[in-house]
Amino acid sequence: MPGLTIGDDLPNFQVETNHGKMKLHDYVGDSYTILFSHPGDFTPVCTTELAMMAAYASKFAAKGVKLLGLSCDDVQSHNEWIKDIEAYNKGQKVTYPIIADPKRELIKQLNMVDPDETDSSGHKLPSRALHIVGPDKKIKLSFLYPASTGRNMDEVLRVVESLQKAAKYKVATPANWKPGEPLVIAPGVSNEEAKEMFPQGFDTANLPSGKSYLRFTNV
Amino acid sequence: MPGLTIGDDLPNFQVETNHGKMKLHDYVGDSYTILFSHPGDFTPVCTTELAMMAAYASKFAAKGVKLLGLSCDDVQSHNEWIKDIEAYNKGQKVTYPIIADPKRELIKQLNMVDPDETDSSGHKLPSRALHIVGPDKKIKLSFLYPASTGRNMDEVLRVVESLQKAAKYKVATPANWKPGEPLVIAPGVSNEEAKEMFPQGFDTANLPSGKSYLRFTNV
Repeated sequence: MPGLTIGDDLPNFQVETNHGKMKLHDYVGDSYTILFSHPGDFTPVCTTELAMMAAYASKFAAKGVKLLGLSCDDVQSHNEWIKDIEAYNKGQKVTYPIIADPKRELIKQLNMVDPDETDSSGHKLPSRALHIVGPDKKIKLSFLYPASTGRNMDEVLRVVESLQKAAKYKVATPANWKPGEPLVIAPGVSNEEAKEMFPQGFDTANLPSGKSYLRFTNV
Repeated sequence: MPGLTIGDDLPNFQVETNHGKMKLHDYVGDSYTILFSHPGDFTPVCTTELAMMAAYASKFAAKGVKLLGLSCDDVQSHNEWIKDIEAYNKGQKVTYPIIADPKRELIKQLNMVDPDETDSSGHKLPSRALHIVGPDKKIKLSFLYPASTGRNMDEVLRVVESLQKAAKYKVATPANWKPGEPLVIAPGVSNEEAKEMFPQGFDTANLPSGKSYLRFTNV
């Protein structure tokens, strides 16, 4: 199925949201942006997800990250549903915009269609897709979850921090990495360059191949 | 970019692995299977990821889940590299097979190409794609991470448990759900049906819309 994947440009669509009309690139601006779709308003997992995103909004904002929801319901539905989300969320406000895509044009272009899910009229519904878009308007990382699996905002926060570290330093984050733990030095960096780039030092794993490619540091 | 997404069939390719030749559907059999690609052998993040997968292999096996790696290196490279992985992993063995795709045919078909990463000869490399394939040979859930972000095997375990719960009961897992926490009842289940299906009972959230779609239970 065609659609967006990492490295692709986010198309600069004009979209309608419950905060008014906007062009996607204008919204992204110079920030990382989390564009996430949900199958439908007034459904259970979606309510817990949009509530959790509202609860995490300040953590994302502290990293300069914007949030942008999307479903195929219309703006009036979004505004009515937000009352439910905020009540469930003990009054915590949904401050990010939610795109209305009742014609299902965006979800096809943005690789957010779930072929297993249809509404009562037989129309296709979005999957739980989540694309992290960089300040360069390119897709950096994507999750595609089915309707039955709610996303994990701690994992989303974790990968945002990884992306931002790798954009700032020549590093990458190892498996199961958490913020504060050692990172690895990118393979393209020679040991001589690494000594200059990382004056705090680095530890090289001693491996049977004798190759020194696994180097840990802290930044 | 064309490629696999959730709901698509896993193509039944004949593949070469460090455990010999196999057809993908024969390997999947009646199990959930995690098919995960890595950019390259003898590189830092990949080593930590394949080591972590080896460390988690018994947890996945306990859920009846098989593991299957993939990169564009050849079988000889995989076998040499595994010595490094096992040494780094304090001797823990890499028991799952790793596909060798030196002609880069599979990574294109399986939506595992990272357009930003090339090897020293300018050839495309795989992203950190991870597809969870069901016993029906369909893609259930996908992660697409860039070379600089190692995956989180705890999140992979979490979503496997969610998929298995939803396949067994008419439930779904809310945002940030962890095994043992309450689940939500699927929207298509009426309250009357829910009373029969979930004799342990369920709690319905009291929402401003007056709709009773957010129902929590334990299974």
